Amino acid sequence: METNNQNLLLDAQNHENQMIRIRLLWYTPNPEFTVALAMRRCYSAKPIEELEAELSSRPGYEHDLIAKALRDKTFDVIEHAVFMFEIEGISRVCSHQLVRHRIASYDQESQRFSAVEKEDFVTPPSIQTNPQAVAVYQEFIKASVEAFRKLKELDVPKEDARFILPQSIGTKLVVTANARSLMHFFWQRTATQAQWEIRELAELMLKECKKVAPSIFKEVLEV
Amino acid sequence: METNNQNLLLDAQNHENQMIRIRLLWYTPNPEFTVALAMRRCYSAKPIEELEAELSSRPGYEHDLIAKALRDKTFDVIEHAVFMFEIEGISRVCSHQLVRHRIASYDQESQRFSAVEKEDFVTPPSIQTNPQAVAVYQEFIKASVEAFRKLKELDVPKEDARFILPQSIGTKLVVTANARSLMHFFWQRTATQAQWEIRELAELMLKECKKVAPSIFKEVLEV
Amino acid sequence: METNNQNLLLDAQNHENQMIRIRLLWYTPNPEFTVALAMRRCYSAKPIEELEAELSSRPGYEHDLIAKALRDKTFDVIEHAVFMFEIEGISRVCSHQLVRHRIASYDQESQRFSAVEKEDFVTPPSIQTNPQAVAVYQEFIKASVEAFRKLKELDVPKEDARFILPQSIGTKLVVTANARSLMHFFWQRTATQAQWEIRELAELMLKECKKVAPSIFKEVLEV
Amino acid sequence: METNNQNLLLDAQNHENQMIRIRLLWYTPNPEFTVALAMRRCYSAKPIEELEAELSSRPGYEHDLIAKALRDKTFDVIEHAVFMFEIEGISRVCSHQLVRHRIASYDQESQRFSAVEKEDFVTPPSIQTNPQAVAVYQEFIKASVEAFRKLKELDVPKEDARFILPQSIGTKLVVTANARSLMHFFWQRTATQAQWEIRELAELMLKECKKVAPSIFKEVLEV
Repeated sequence: METNNQNLLLDAQNHENQMIRIRLLWYTPNPEFTVALAMRRCYSAKPIEELEAELSSRPGYEHDLIAKALRDKTFDVIEHAVFMFEIEGISRVCSHQLVRHRIASYDQESQRFSAVEKEDFVTPPSIQTNPQAVAVYQEFIKASVEAFRKLKELDVPKEDARFILPQSIGTKLVVTANARSLMHFFWQRTATQAQWEIRELAELMLKECKKVAPSIFKEVLEV
Repeated sequence: METNNQNLLLDAQNHENQMIRIRLLWYTPNPEFTVALAMRRCYSAKPIEELEAELSSRPGYEHDLIAKALRDKTFDVIEHAVFMFEIEGISRVCSHQLVRHRIASYDQESQRFSAVEKEDFVTPPSIQTNPQAVAVYQEFIKASVEAFRKLKELDVPKEDARFILPQSIGTKLVVTANARSLMHFFWQRTATQAQWEIRELAELMLKECKKVAPSIFKEVLEV
Repeated sequence: METNNQNLLLDAQNHENQMIRIRLLWYTPNPEFTVALAMRRCYSAKPIEELEAELSSRPGYEHDLIAKALRDKTFDVIEHAVFMFEIEGISRVCSHQLVRHRIASYDQESQRFSAVEKEDFVTPPSIQTNPQAVAVYQEFIKASVEAFRKLKELDVPKEDARFILPQSIGTKLVVTANARSLMHFFWQRTATQAQWEIRELAELMLKECKKVAPSIFKEVLEV
Repeated sequence: METNNQNLLLDAQNHENQMIRIRLLWYTPNPEFTVALAMRRCYSAKPIEELEAELSSRPGYEHDLIAKALRDKTFDVIEHAVFMFEIEGISRVCSHQLVRHRIASYDQESQRFSAVEKEDFVTPPSIQTNPQAVAVYQEFIKASVEAFRKLKELDVPKEDARFILPQSIGTKLVVTANARSLMHFFWQRTATQAQWEIRELAELMLKECKKVAPSIFKEVLEV
């Protein structure tokens, strides 16, 4: 089943109505230099300016230090590299899984305030690739938006009317986490037994992290 | 609006189809003695057995110590009192809010495995007390269970078919948390601006905590 | 050097003036049953009472479930097993390392309040087994207690006079932590590169945990 | 006594041999804009680019949003502002207190590796301002460095010889923490009952935070 899902995922990634969109909002300036500096701090009594000067003057030194830290499993040093992401277009199924990762800071769009459109729902790949299932699914999503509208007309507060909405409804959130916590997230959620949606999210985030901190995220390690 | 909701909540609490059920599975043996002991540890160099003997021999002493800790806001001592709850019959709207409290351990019924019945859904009080809304709501829940069944017949995996289920679907989970983290949860979620469902959950949990650790939970403090 | 230290450690463990003393103050009642129950909660929609009955009626089932959780690295379930220890007779070198483990609750004897005697100091095994070093060490400890006394006579507040005390001074503290956090601590601090004192402490604590939760702590896993 | 200490502290701050030195190594770019953006994320379903554009086009808006968040005690939003400090010249008494703040990342100079000089020790203000106490203190520090040297000559490993060193020995460390965790630290450690050294450290760090995120740190709040 997992293998099957994987194929569907690849399909989905080329699919035009793919919804997940992420953006790296900010990250620790010079994350690898910073991590290497924290590591040097442990092994030296020199003032920080000397450690900085030493690191700056030896090209490649910071990468060697990070490689050593990861090899020795002294993962605390990578906590000084912090990343903040905007995430859009994941379902509430996925966000419920995501916020279970406790060493991170989240702020999520509240359903007590925002509007709902039938375009805002996530369609699983196994449905997207099954025309009969698509028909059932889309009709139902449409009906749910209609029922939501009716409940509001009957003076049900929005925060209660939304109980009727399928959990495939899309959500947006920001998340700030350090490289150690992210590494654990990637390790757990890019694995084959992870669900396709959070796995896709984890892979997108990992890709961004690799761009700006390749020495840290070269490999997904069990942290 | 909040006041309004509050009335509905009281209604709901007397309502026969009320769903939330909690059970305190275990807690620190003698939680108040334990907290008082931790506090004594800070102020004394005596072996633990002497501190225990002193505490045991002075009736009411542990309550005075806890009162002092809470007054002085040295909240770390109440972390040694730990509580584990089973929670049943809350919606996934509520569980999504609950697991945002990060200093706690959760294990939740996975929708990738369990079955779905139309009785498993939470109905907000503002719908329960509005016959027209009840009609819309119940019909829709029934339709969602039907659509879920159809998707599974079309070979959509259960973990994807569930995307169609309303987020009012009930869930069960266990949570373990210490008194400091619980106090923060109670402070935040028994407040008037909290949503009715998590507020009701928080009040039920607080009631259980008060029974076994009245000195700690006498008042809900901002922690 | 590490091997060398290890021999000294064994020596030290048989040494009569060995100082560390720990006591398991309390732990989750039936910790293994509780962990197994949390695991069953993930995979079932049944009420907790049914899960409890099933677990109770199948001897050995809980051990199989824990073995599976550890094999599958779903370590969150062991967080529901919580342990509280009293620790006495470690140095402040050791307690400074200990409290770096952040997922735990500590309360430590404050040096702002307690008295100081020359018997309260920890002597490293490498000194204990070296008569010349012992002479230097003991004389110096005695001098430090004397200097501490003199500073207090000169009206230096105790909290400042203690700046003069060697960091080998003994301390007492209580710590509450769950099995996942403890496992990480054991993994990191029973390793050969750990310092002898915290390693000895970790081994004593592990021994107690094994007695009451053998299935969980059978092996020290990288968590 | 506290008032007394406070005077000594002010003295100490003008004292030439004052040792604490901190440097803000990096912080979230535009920390206040980022916090305001996280807050807007909760209340809107718009794409992040629109929220950014709105915030950018309304001068003063981000400050109003932060003021509202702090007033409403929705402190989670300030977690997205992260700060990394280098800290030098605090005693191990102080660093032991500092690392008790668990929601932060630390890397500290290890005494297993670095050298020791008699200039590396912190002198409490109550000793600095008392000539007789200074004499006792300085002589003792000198003797401790000498004893440390002797133990090493006797082949005691450095990691054990350091047990003899007074806990006033200076240390260097880096710390990364978010604004919420820092606010709690400032609230607890700039209070009159905090010890002079960690209080002085907290005040220096607060001053740096105020420079780059004045709306967040305008007031030290109980968080």
